[in-house]
Amino acid sequence: MLHLLSPRGFKAGAAHAGIKTTPSPDVGLLICDVPATAAAVFTTNKVFAAPITIGREHIRGGKLRGIVVNSGNANACTGRRGETDAMQMCRAAARIVGCGEREILPSSTGIIGRHLPMEKIRRGIDLAGKDLGDSAAHARRFEQAILTTDMRRKSAVTRFRAGKNWITVAGVCKGSGMIGPRLGVNGATPHATMLAYLTTDAKIAAGVLRRILAEAAEASFNAVTVDDHTSTNDTAAILASGFGPAVDSRQSIALFAAAMKEVCQSLAYKIAEDGEGATKVVQIEVRGAKTENDARGIARAIANSPLVKCAMNGNDPNWGRIVSAAGLCGAAFDPDQAELKLQQTSVFKSGRPMRFDAARVSKSLDSKRVIVDLNCRLGKSSATVWTCDLSREYVTINADYHT
Amino acid sequence: MLHLLSPRGFKAGAAHAGIKTTPSPDVGLLICDVPATAAAVFTTNKVFAAPITIGREHIRGGKLRGIVVNSGNANACTGRRGETDAMQMCRAAARIVGCGEREILPSSTGIIGRHLPMEKIRRGIDLAGKDLGDSAAHARRFEQAILTTDMRRKSAVTRFRAGKNWITVAGVCKGSGMIGPRLGVNGATPHATMLAYLTTDAKIAAGVLRRILAEAAEASFNAVTVDDHTSTNDTAAILASGFGPAVDSRQSIALFAAAMKEVCQSLAYKIAEDGEGATKVVQIEVRGAKTENDARGIARAIANSPLVKCAMNGNDPNWGRIVSAAGLCGAAFDPDQAELKLQQTSVFKSGRPMRFDAARVSKSLDSKRVIVDLNCRLGKSSATVWTCDLSREYVTINADYHT
Repeated sequence: MLHLLSPRGFKAGAAHAGIKTTPSPDVGLLICDVPATAAAVFTTNKVFAAPITIGREHIRGGKLRGIVVNSGNANACTGRRGETDAMQMCRAAARIVGCGEREILPSSTGIIGRHLPMEKIRRGIDLAGKDLGDSAAHARRFEQAILTTDMRRKSAVTRFRAGKNWITVAGVCKGSGMIGPRLGVNGATPHATMLAYLTTDAKIAAGVLRRILAEAAEASFNAVTVDDHTSTNDTAAILASGFGPAVDSRQSIALFAAAMKEVCQSLAYKIAEDGEGATKVVQIEVRGAKTENDARGIARAIANSPLVKCAMNGNDPNWGRIVSAAGLCGAAFDPDQAELKLQQTSVFKSGRPMRFDAARVSKSLDSKRVIVDLNCRLGKSSATVWTCDLSREYVTINADYHT
Repeated sequence: MLHLLSPRGFKAGAAHAGIKTTPSPDVGLLICDVPATAAAVFTTNKVFAAPITIGREHIRGGKLRGIVVNSGNANACTGRRGETDAMQMCRAAARIVGCGEREILPSSTGIIGRHLPMEKIRRGIDLAGKDLGDSAAHARRFEQAILTTDMRRKSAVTRFRAGKNWITVAGVCKGSGMIGPRLGVNGATPHATMLAYLTTDAKIAAGVLRRILAEAAEASFNAVTVDDHTSTNDTAAILASGFGPAVDSRQSIALFAAAMKEVCQSLAYKIAEDGEGATKVVQIEVRGAKTENDARGIARAIANSPLVKCAMNGNDPNWGRIVSAAGLCGAAFDPDQAELKLQQTSVFKSGRPMRFDAARVSKSLDSKRVIVDLNCRLGKSSATVWTCDLSREYVTINADYHT
């Protein structure tokens, strides 16, 4: 089985520093054996955590040796001291790697508005440093170290041939609540949070890597929503060790971009699947929209409607909620043109309700994956957005979780 | 006690036509003894119900004799036949009043995508016509006839002196789910739904009435959200009988506008209070924003965050969710400038968490009304938005309600 450390040149370590109340690891290190070509996208929330401020600076040169991350505390809304703490995390990691502190990208996720317990964090980073290795078990422990309200670890890997050799693209992520990422290359950052870290052994220029990451993030992390609450800490970063074949031709760049998109979409899907209280993934497919912005806007409006999400929880083919959500977001939409299918059954077409077997469609909604397919018939643009249903369990998780 | 029929010149009637499964009235008539000066604002959803199409035409001349309304079926997404049905409702009402069908405004609320049961509706309108009267009991039955998932009837009345006489402004409304109205004078319309009907005995020009209604709606109905799902059927309409003093001077117009705003805000507050599954009203006060749009955008982003709404349900002073919601909507916002108070306790200021007694603040949140006061300190604009908490009961209502 391929994993985060399958691309040549990477090691990871994790430790339980005691930030989270559970005994699972809460500090992680992901290290490249050489200065890696690197790119990252961050939250566009105007309230962004200290590690985002620092991360934006450190990614500027397009080179990184590693990533240091803690869960259980977001280091957000923590003022100057938060920035000092994030820098200290970098320094502690850099000491282990033997590199400059600016070659480390810091990340945090967890509660907003608390200062990091730096003693615990430093000890955790040291322990993670002693734990470094490139086995599947090491990858798994790193995956675990970044989780907060997540129920499951999340990873994805793909590879493709470049000449005689293979290029591997791997990724891990966390995210279950406060999920409505809007990542931007020059973006700003907010608590749970989406974090994704990717590794590859491709040899690739930083500018190309940045563009491909931004495109892949747009079609994946920026297209998943649990609560549409863009976090203070959202981050997606990739490190390329360069130990593998070069990605420099039109063809290899296209293959690499496709691999990146595949891995990021697989991770985004897993976030929806593990959304707080989720029992299913709802995949919104909007086709025939006038513009791409319209397609995305309509898909997001449907995905974020609590009425639609509750109907999905109850396996209720309540298509009126879906069609009305499509109309409310300001995008061009004409119900007289549109057709809506739920799990391939046409339920609304050309302004009129279709006859359908409600019991049968309801049964088809009782599935781990529901496809909502809306054809606007106004143009050629399309968008896919992944969300989950809204359950009583979601409320329990978020009403009873106390600061 | 003043009520909807206290302004001189109005009668109402209601009947149980059997559209709703409960035995409560589901058809209502509100009639003016003379051609009333009238104004209405409708949903801006691009998917709008048949009665909205008809209502927009009938309001054009600024004169109406009455309003006919049914609950239990929204007559939305029902194509041409829906429009014919809405016109037939007008015709049946007009026959009772003895006026033209274009002098009647039709309204519907309930499930989307079903044709109206016209036999039942016609019989219901006839019965409501036989029930017409101007007593408090008549007002109450009309209030009840417009409800769907609402738990309570909603009404508000105020009056002010104009010379030796009084001008009364009264209103009733319904709304509990699918509440995120964006009413526009030239708007378009979507299921539950916000419906509000106002009466006054003022003598006022149609153009002035239209402007004052639009302004009052903006500061009231357009500032309440339960699920941010703008409905296909949202409507607010006012009828002015002219039996009272004239509103034609600068001073009387200002007094009338203030009275309208007071009644509409009282109704909007009651919608939040009766939001599906709500245990409390959360009043978001944004001050010091750069522009009015920014103030509204920030207040709405906070009001619509499921994380904020769940925290409120759990009496959790989780201010990180509020501050991060303020930053995610694109409005100008700088956490280093801002101050956030929960029930008058400062919890976040100038980029840093404040020390506060979490148990005490949590206790203060256990209230029928919670004030979230965010001062952006970037300008002079402000906005108020009312919402409710998100409870397990909300999910039960909306997951188990079947089409």
